[in-house]
Amino acid sequence: MSATGARERVLLAVDSGGSGLRVAVGTPASGPLVRRAGREPVRTGARGLDPRHLAELLVPLARAALAEAGHRAPDAVAVGAAGFASLGDAWRAELPDVLAREFGGGRGTWAGTVLASDAVTAYVGALGCRPGAVVAAGTGLTATGTDLSAWRRADGWGHLLGDCGSGAWIGRAGLEAALRAHDGRPGGSTTLLERGEALLGPAAGWPQALYPRTDRSAVLASFAPEVAACAPADPVAQEILREAARHMAGAAAAACPGGGEPVVAVTGGLVRLGEPLTGPLREELAKAVPHARQVPPAGDPLAGAFRLASGLALGDLALPPDPRLLCVTGAGTAGRPRTD
Amino acid sequence: MSATGARERVLLAVDSGGSGLRVAVGTPASGPLVRRAGREPVRTGARGLDPRHLAELLVPLARAALAEAGHRAPDAVAVGAAGFASLGDAWRAELPDVLAREFGGGRGTWAGTVLASDAVTAYVGALGCRPGAVVAAGTGLTATGTDLSAWRRADGWGHLLGDCGSGAWIGRAGLEAALRAHDGRPGGSTTLLERGEALLGPAAGWPQALYPRTDRSAVLASFAPEVAACAPADPVAQEILREAARHMAGAAAAACPGGGEPVVAVTGGLVRLGEPLTGPLREELAKAVPHARQVPPAGDPLAGAFRLASGLALGDLALPPDPRLLCVTGAGTAGRPRTD
Repeated sequence: MSATGARERVLLAVDSGGSGLRVAVGTPASGPLVRRAGREPVRTGARGLDPRHLAELLVPLARAALAEAGHRAPDAVAVGAAGFASLGDAWRAELPDVLAREFGGGRGTWAGTVLASDAVTAYVGALGCRPGAVVAAGTGLTATGTDLSAWRRADGWGHLLGDCGSGAWIGRAGLEAALRAHDGRPGGSTTLLERGEALLGPAAGWPQALYPRTDRSAVLASFAPEVAACAPADPVAQEILREAARHMAGAAAAACPGGGEPVVAVTGGLVRLGEPLTGPLREELAKAVPHARQVPPAGDPLAGAFRLASGLALGDLALPPDPRLLCVTGAGTAGRPRTD
Repeated sequence: MSATGARERVLLAVDSGGSGLRVAVGTPASGPLVRRAGREPVRTGARGLDPRHLAELLVPLARAALAEAGHRAPDAVAVGAAGFASLGDAWRAELPDVLAREFGGGRGTWAGTVLASDAVTAYVGALGCRPGAVVAAGTGLTATGTDLSAWRRADGWGHLLGDCGSGAWIGRAGLEAALRAHDGRPGGSTTLLERGEALLGPAAGWPQALYPRTDRSAVLASFAPEVAACAPADPVAQEILREAARHMAGAAAAACPGGGEPVVAVTGGLVRLGEPLTGPLREELAKAVPHARQVPPAGDPLAGAFRLASGLALGDLALPPDPRLLCVTGAGTAGRPRTD
């Protein structure tokens, strides 16, 4: 097949997250032409994501996007999924078969499938296939890095064991500082106490409003914007964001290659806190990874999945496979994750 | 009635906590003579402890203790209960009636009832009716203080919003430091990582072992003794305990009277961590409340409840009433909490 032919192959990119599925269709030459989103998240059971439920939700969404782009079937499919790293072997063995069956893997143009953790699609979306590190910071926080021979991850342990510097971390620290002021303990902020009581009612009711919830980390993270809003005039809030930036930079440094000319980017909803966080973050990254160039993320995780599908079709996927992060199943090898 | 007569009055003291009821019987002259414990905790509903269930569990236990001490009925009853501070008015209105009815409140020697938060019984058990502050530190952490005209409380907000320096706080910080070492982030301790993996299995499984549990704070606190065990040889563990001591001293300072000659004590299971915690704690208390004399706690919360019953019988209860902490219902005023 000619290089020109490969650049016309039809790509289907999928991003599966907590708010549902998103798909993009296009070719390596065109880039993503059509995007569609579904609202239902894929069911998660004891052994992780349910591959049949994923297929069930994906197929109509993908067919609609393919039709809109004027295509019948994709030649390469890449799926990025939250929670991929914790999935068992069954999922990884089954999903490529399911996708190949659904999307006509028998055809001569079929290039195969890529399954990836959302950390990898976020990485590739932000930086492409270059060495570096990406800090994905929202309610939680994970850093993912590669020197193109192996992946390195840091944090992502959840709001009790880690996610240091995340939205939940910042919000929790802000509420603690508010309650310090309430009690007259050191390190308190009356400004944060006022903001907290305006948002959540009297402090005495906060434990009852938080502990019975199942989405505690989201409740904590909902206070992070208040901390950012207070920071310009409140030294306690300012120090919380400085410390968060220090944690984020520490995670970036742990994931980033120590040599070469890596690039580093921060993605996720937390960057919307703006300058009160991103200012200190630039400084802390410069200290923690002085050899890395800070860049804005080029694209989102769906763009990353598209790049993975494109890399598979073009044969230029220069990223290291990893059973917990990135599994490539080429044409004719369905069900047998490539490990080379 | 003569002072001698009052000193022979029969006292029933009750401590209601998560592990069940404990009772003590004696007289002001004798002190507690008989102690008994039940294993069933009092049911807690939406409006707090169920007063009828408390009575149901208490009566047989109290009757057995009274009989063993050679008495038929108490003349004063004091109940200290975990969760008292968050109870509604109904409980406070109903329980004195229930107790007076059960234990023969019609008699001429009947002195009444005292209902108290476990924070108050811990305070009185540790310090008696003197001004000062008590830090109760176990899985959680609360400081309670009084200048004898009002109560002051600090922290006790639970493991996400506060309880700074508690067992859950120390354990959580220890596990975070272990995972920092696992990831190669700054501030990690390989010693804590080894201890953690020996106790909880491979680090990758910790989130799954912790987050689905309903007793997360207890799981976190279970790691606190490992942090203390590592502290003599591990600077990260040592700094965690130093920081915990600083938090505990900050809570003590917030609760302690600012003037006079207050006494301060630390109670609860956390002191069993020994010198790695209590050493720094002595130093931090000396910095945070330099005017307060540090003393070992004289007795436990049940001894505190006994002291409250004795104070009611002798008329020397010099502690401030507080609807959320200490309600005294004298003879003939059942159902009407005294507010003077």
